[in-house]
Amino acid sequence: VNFALPLPLVTLTSDFGMSGGYVAAMRGVILGICPDAGLIDVSHDVRPQDINHASFVLGTTFWYFSASTIHLTVVDPGVGTDRYPILLVTPHDSFNGPNNGIFSHVLTAYGSTLSEPLPADVRILDDVQADVPDTCQAFILDRSEYWAETVSNTFHGRDIFAPVEGHLANGVSAEELGPPIPSLKMLYFPYPEARSGQIEGCVIQIDRFGNLITNLVLEEPIDVDIDVEINGHRISGISRNYQSGEGLLAITGSHGFLEIAYANDKASEHTGASVGTKVTVSFDSSDG
Amino acid sequence: VNFALPLPLVTLTSDFGMSGGYVAAMRGVILGICPDAGLIDVSHDVRPQDINHASFVLGTTFWYFSASTIHLTVVDPGVGTDRYPILLVTPHDSFNGPNNGIFSHVLTAYGSTLSEPLPADVRILDDVQADVPDTCQAFILDRSEYWAETVSNTFHGRDIFAPVEGHLANGVSAEELGPPIPSLKMLYFPYPEARSGQIEGCVIQIDRFGNLITNLVLEEPIDVDIDVEINGHRISGISRNYQSGEGLLAITGSHGFLEIAYANDKASEHTGASVGTKVTVSFDSSDG
Amino acid sequence: VNFALPLPLVTLTSDFGMSGGYVAAMRGVILGICPDAGLIDVSHDVRPQDINHASFVLGTTFWYFSASTIHLTVVDPGVGTDRYPILLVTPHDSFNGPNNGIFSHVLTAYGSTLSEPLPADVRILDDVQADVPDTCQAFILDRSEYWAETVSNTFHGRDIFAPVEGHLANGVSAEELGPPIPSLKMLYFPYPEARSGQIEGCVIQIDRFGNLITNLVLEEPIDVDIDVEINGHRISGISRNYQSGEGLLAITGSHGFLEIAYANDKASEHTGASVGTKVTVSFDSSDG
Repeated sequence: VNFALPLPLVTLTSDFGMSGGYVAAMRGVILGICPDAGLIDVSHDVRPQDINHASFVLGTTFWYFSASTIHLTVVDPGVGTDRYPILLVTPHDSFNGPNNGIFSHVLTAYGSTLSEPLPADVRILDDVQADVPDTCQAFILDRSEYWAETVSNTFHGRDIFAPVEGHLANGVSAEELGPPIPSLKMLYFPYPEARSGQIEGCVIQIDRFGNLITNLVLEEPIDVDIDVEINGHRISGISRNYQSGEGLLAITGSHGFLEIAYANDKASEHTGASVGTKVTVSFDSSDG
Repeated sequence: VNFALPLPLVTLTSDFGMSGGYVAAMRGVILGICPDAGLIDVSHDVRPQDINHASFVLGTTFWYFSASTIHLTVVDPGVGTDRYPILLVTPHDSFNGPNNGIFSHVLTAYGSTLSEPLPADVRILDDVQADVPDTCQAFILDRSEYWAETVSNTFHGRDIFAPVEGHLANGVSAEELGPPIPSLKMLYFPYPEARSGQIEGCVIQIDRFGNLITNLVLEEPIDVDIDVEINGHRISGISRNYQSGEGLLAITGSHGFLEIAYANDKASEHTGASVGTKVTVSFDSSDG
Repeated sequence: VNFALPLPLVTLTSDFGMSGGYVAAMRGVILGICPDAGLIDVSHDVRPQDINHASFVLGTTFWYFSASTIHLTVVDPGVGTDRYPILLVTPHDSFNGPNNGIFSHVLTAYGSTLSEPLPADVRILDDVQADVPDTCQAFILDRSEYWAETVSNTFHGRDIFAPVEGHLANGVSAEELGPPIPSLKMLYFPYPEARSGQIEGCVIQIDRFGNLITNLVLEEPIDVDIDVEINGHRISGISRNYQSGEGLLAITGSHGFLEIAYANDKASEHTGASVGTKVTVSFDSSDG
């Protein structure tokens, strides 16, 4: 017995909510296979069937877990259809879930690039195909000996992903669980676009305080004379925190992205913005 | 020291929600008595005072936990009245909670039968009395030496059930906690009724996606030519998953029961059905 | 290796909700520093930015945890402003959070007294200054070597409080984390006031069942002939439980405080009461 061995750490993310027994069933299955697993909930309040929400939560959280953590992620509107269950192994930790774009933010973090040219009519959140980065590997989870004996058509979280998670926590290697796959589905967002004195991005997520999180990362030290524009609203300067100012504020949020907040209220309601709404940062303000 | 001993596993189910400290107080009490207990939440978002909801969540979840798990279940509108605190011991695991019907689904799973003839005017969810099955045992938890020193009238979860749970996790035997009891309260649902070419059941639960879960279990392989009728809506055939079709779908859900879903929407709203609404399956469709 | 050492127990309280990755990030950071920590959620559904709610949840829950538990509490509308991060050490356990009144109930429990005369125009929930009681100690958490390498302006839960919590769980002493501080912020509530045959208090919290929790503690055995008055509603006598009566009930709640409930409904809606609403108990009822 090696007492230095830490608990294999397992996180769970889903849109199952906590009003039914769905999450508990997954927990029971994992602990039935690996009783020593340390189970940590990331979130089960992902908005129902909102793959982009799950992808964002996961992509902004996994950094804070120790390497070798295994993340179980089940937001899976296509359960029972032909989308694959997959395992994504990165230099930091591993991710187990459906191939439906749920790992978009993780793949982006590791520098994944598109596998094929974008369709001309591509829209935000459309499915596109992205290469698994060189530093990572992905596997199709098709070895049914690591699944539940009976697999339902509607709850692969319990019948496929949780058993696989338990076996991974027990030390089964990724290679034993299925064959490699070179590219994965990704949800489309345009890259931020720099123009003369401006950079244009978009809202990629709205948190429960109504803060608008963009895909713009401003270089430190931040020029406080910049202007931010969204849906016809103009914000002058970058605030240090949610209380330094009135009305709409631009701020570098805890995820590192430019956020638009509203002092003691919801920026989402004050701007009418939603995921995909354009956000423009001007470094050379006409007012300045 | 025996390193092979697994943590005693304890699950918690309640309608306390997570906005107050009620659940935390129970966790603290259990860990104060048995610091090694592994605590797993089943749900604290049971609809307030909805015993049938708790019974369903518990009855469809306990299978997935290892035998010897002890389930603490407190949805207890009658707290402080003369309903008993009880312990139900089954061949698989143990259940600790008020005698108010919260173990109905578990008792049904073990083949419990009614202790007395049904009243002529019995209605769905009425209290009836059911025998503890031969393979199980039940005990009244009346030994106050295993309770908190002071017992409130309004929070037996913290003052009776959690301390008892801690002592059970520490290895105290069921017999030490109180005397046996031969029958328990059960919430009434009619058994599914078979007629010529038809079977009639009812909705027993509605999940957070608005799916209607019935008490009908169809034999595999399922004849896909069946018709399902609910509140005047007719569904032809059984779908494999939530995305194979449009509008109302009939599907074998993850609990094994026939479910009625609506593609990307709430079947509960489209049908106006509630718990108790009749559902008829016709094997000999007049269209077929 | 000392096998008798229990897990260092850590509780978490916040208003982050579970729909984002905020709580998970804190959990990951704590476990990254102290992999053996036992993490217990008190609540992450504290009403957003409601310091009084957090203070109440914490103050009515900490008793049930074993001494040496460390409570991480982050409801922090002033994050990034000059409010201090602090550690409050009591004879029972320790509390780690912002100096914004979040420890008001804990300080009251230990007999804290005001540091200065009340302003004439003080209102309920205003900030006042209270001495750290003699049996306790408080420290400003200003040693950045125990923080994250990079500290955001908007998420000190992850970047300051969680790392400090991890180091405390690892055995770092309070004195190493920063200098002592003699007084802390407290949210103002008037003390209950006794007059001839009456005592007047107020509502200090409303729970999710709509029960009104007051700051009145009645001496046992309670004279059941008392009258309770709130917002023009009069309640005769004290009930033993939530089901013994109809309409408005007065009851000694599980926190030990006088509560006003409504049988099978919300007292908050029936009375229109809110935090601060006066409640008068008359021991010499004019009806009696």
